[in-house]
Amino acid sequence: MDENKLEEKGIVSQMEFDGSIMKVKKDEVELPDGSRSKREIVEHPGGVTILPITPAGNISLIEQYRYAAGEVLLELPAGRLEPGEDPEECGRRELKEETGYIAENLEHLFSFYTTPGYSTECLHLFLAENLQKGEQELDEGEFVRMAEVEPDKIKDLVFSGRIKDSKTAVGLLAFLQLQD
Amino acid sequence: MDENKLEEKGIVSQMEFDGSIMKVKKDEVELPDGSRSKREIVEHPGGVTILPITPAGNISLIEQYRYAAGEVLLELPAGRLEPGEDPEECGRRELKEETGYIAENLEHLFSFYTTPGYSTECLHLFLAENLQKGEQELDEGEFVRMAEVEPDKIKDLVFSGRIKDSKTAVGLLAFLQLQD
Repeated sequence: MDENKLEEKGIVSQMEFDGSIMKVKKDEVELPDGSRSKREIVEHPGGVTILPITPAGNISLIEQYRYAAGEVLLELPAGRLEPGEDPEECGRRELKEETGYIAENLEHLFSFYTTPGYSTECLHLFLAENLQKGEQELDEGEFVRMAEVEPDKIKDLVFSGRIKDSKTAVGLLAFLQLQD
Repeated sequence: MDENKLEEKGIVSQMEFDGSIMKVKKDEVELPDGSRSKREIVEHPGGVTILPITPAGNISLIEQYRYAAGEVLLELPAGRLEPGEDPEECGRRELKEETGYIAENLEHLFSFYTTPGYSTECLHLFLAENLQKGEQELDEGEFVRMAEVEPDKIKDLVFSGRIKDSKTAVGLLAFLQLQD
């Protein structure tokens, strides 16, 4: 692929917000035709999301209140990468914290940007099978309710609008392909 | 569902960045146990993404450079909602601009938050069939290359990691369910 005709080059970058989970920058870029434009970018460490298959063959989910959405969402377990953390290690940690499930091995399926128009956040999707049940270990200030869905309910959950989180829609719909 | 046990209440909100495509706020919230925490939130107008089925039965996609990702991504056509704009109208406009395809009617499939942990952005996914081909009408400063994928290639594209954009993975995997 000839990327030269589409690529934008950063010229100047200005920090606008230096937060604890994100930085926000406003960059000036050079477009493929040599003209210039502005880009507002969220820098985010990225994270991991897990598709945990329970011993009964269901998918383990969590319900949590999302302040940005203003409602409780039904989601796959997930978490932010800590600096230098291995994604698989992060996945095992978050799965244990949020659901109590212990996974020996996680299988990386694929990775995706949540919203590449303005955020660097990339999520790594892992399949977790052969789970053992342990105790939930939520972080301080984390309030999460466990849920479970049977594979034959997934299509209805997604198309009815009950799944309102993109990573969860990706993971659940990908699971249906794994079953085919 | 008893949402009271999970809900967070906004106490104080402070604007940190007032950009042209997003606002960034840092809010103090009250957690379900009465303790307090901070939330860094991107306010985004939301948008529309379209699953366009060509007369040949393929899916019309675009390639564009994403500065936040630092690479060219293969994506479904999409765009931001303008203030007060009807999502279906936005979908018809963006489809025509980016691909040249004209759709009489769009069918709303479902909607999802791209990354509800920190952004208010909600995307509405529409199916566009019975398309007529017109001329691409890219906005100034918009550089996009058209692409097309056959339905039986979708699973490989997603699981090989070639699709790196969450809305595109959601839309393509949802399309496979519509065919079943």
